[in-house]
Amino acid sequence: MVSVVLIGTGNVATQLFDTFLAYNTINVVQVVGRSKKSLAHFATKTETTEALETIKKADVYIISVSDDAIQPLAKQLVHLNGLVVHTSGSVPVTALSEVRNYGVFYPLQTFTKGKKLNFRTIPICLETSKNEDLKILHFIAETISDVVYDISTEQRQSLHLAAVFVNNFTNYMYRIGQEICEENKVSFEILKPLIQETALKINALTPLEAQTGPAMRNDIQTMQAHLEQLTSKNNQKIYKLLSESIQKKI
Amino acid sequence: MVSVVLIGTGNVATQLFDTFLAYNTINVVQVVGRSKKSLAHFATKTETTEALETIKKADVYIISVSDDAIQPLAKQLVHLNGLVVHTSGSVPVTALSEVRNYGVFYPLQTFTKGKKLNFRTIPICLETSKNEDLKILHFIAETISDVVYDISTEQRQSLHLAAVFVNNFTNYMYRIGQEICEENKVSFEILKPLIQETALKINALTPLEAQTGPAMRNDIQTMQAHLEQLTSKNNQKIYKLLSESIQKKI
Repeated sequence: MVSVVLIGTGNVATQLFDTFLAYNTINVVQVVGRSKKSLAHFATKTETTEALETIKKADVYIISVSDDAIQPLAKQLVHLNGLVVHTSGSVPVTALSEVRNYGVFYPLQTFTKGKKLNFRTIPICLETSKNEDLKILHFIAETISDVVYDISTEQRQSLHLAAVFVNNFTNYMYRIGQEICEENKVSFEILKPLIQETALKINALTPLEAQTGPAMRNDIQTMQAHLEQLTSKNNQKIYKLLSESIQKKI
Repeated sequence: MVSVVLIGTGNVATQLFDTFLAYNTINVVQVVGRSKKSLAHFATKTETTEALETIKKADVYIISVSDDAIQPLAKQLVHLNGLVVHTSGSVPVTALSEVRNYGVFYPLQTFTKGKKLNFRTIPICLETSKNEDLKILHFIAETISDVVYDISTEQRQSLHLAAVFVNNFTNYMYRIGQEICEENKVSFEILKPLIQETALKINALTPLEAQTGPAMRNDIQTMQAHLEQLTSKNNQKIYKLLSESIQKKI
C-alpha cells in the first residue's frame, strides 16, 4: 500500500484521484486545494485541506497545479520526507530541487473536465532525482496504466512540444474545418468520420505513408481553387505554408 | 436490383466494388480499367474490360479516376443511357454535362490501399443533374451507408477544402510530431493515445471548446521555450503562425 497526497484540484488531479480510488494498493490520504469549493469533489471520499501547514505524512506527494505555480509551491514543501513529484510536461524536474526527494509523474493525455478517461492506455512518463525513488513511482504508474516510460526532462519536453502539434494544432485544423463548413452551410458532422479515420490510420501507417491530398500530389489546380475558396486571409496563409511544407518533403 | 459499371481500379473503386459485392441488390456487371494487371482484383468476380467500346449496359456508371481524367473520360461516354456519376470531392458535376444523365457519388473518407473500411459510417454526398435521378443514387448509397446527404457542387467543394485541413494538414501535424520524437530519441508510440483522444474529443465538444495548449492560455514562456527547442526553421514558422491564429480567436 502506497500513501499519496494530491496537491491540486484541476482536471489531472481529479482524474488521478478518481482512478486511484479504484485500486486498494494506492491510498490517497489527503487532497490539498485552494478553496472549499475546489475540494468539494474530494471531501466526501478523503481528508482535504486548504492549508499546506496541515499537510499529512505520505510516501508520495503529487503536485498537479499550473506550470508557473510548481516551483513556488515546492519551496513550501522542503520539510517533507516523502517523494515530491509534479505532473507537468514542460517543467524541468529540477524545479523541485529544493525538496529532498523529487521527480516527475507525467501522464501524456489531454484531460477534459467531466470526461472520464481510461488510464490503462495513457502513457505515464517518469523521472526521479534519485534512482532508488523510481521504484515507488513505477508501482503507482503501473497500477493504473499499461504504458509506463522512464523519460528524461529533455525527452519529456520534446514530447510536450510534439503534443502541441498533434493535439493543440490538430484541434485547430478541426476548428478551421468547422469554420469552412459553417460558412458554406454544410454540417461539420459530415467530417467527423474522416477525422476519426485520419487518427486511426497512423496506427497502421507512418504519417509519411499516410500523407495524401493536393499538396502531396502536386495538384496545382486544386490548390489554386482552394486558395480562392478560402475567405480568411489567415487561413489562406496557413493553407499555403502547410502545402509548401508538405511539398518540400515529398 | 440496380446494375452498375465501375470505371476505374484505384482505392475508391476497389473499396466500392468489395462493398457492393456484399449486397445482392447491387450488381456490378463490369469493371473498366486501363490494364489487365489493374483489373486482376476484379476479374475473378465480374466481367472486366480495358476497352471503353465494349462497355456494358447498366443503370449507373461510377467513374472513379483521378480528377483530371474525369472530363476527358466523360466525352467517351456520351452515347450511354444510364446515369453517369463521378466520385470526386472537388470536380463540379458539370464536368460530366456532355453525357445525358449525370451526377456525383462522393464518399467522404480517406482510402488506404489494403485497409478495408466499413462504409456504413462513411458519409456519401449525392448530386444529380436531374432531380429524378437522385432516387437511384440514394438507393445505392443507402444500401451501403447510414449517412447519405444531398449536397450541391459548392457545398461539396467546401467539404473537400475542409477535409484538406482536418485530414491532410492534421496528418502533417502528426508528421512534425514524429520528427520531433525521432530527433529527441523518444518513441512516437507514446503520442498515439493522445492523437486518438484528440480526435474522439470533438464528438463531445466543439473544436473551440476542445482547444487547449500554451497559445490558448497565452503562456508566453512555454511558447518561447518551444520555439527555441524547434530545430527546423519551417516548423518554427508553423508553430508561430498557428499559435498566433489560435490567439487571435480567443
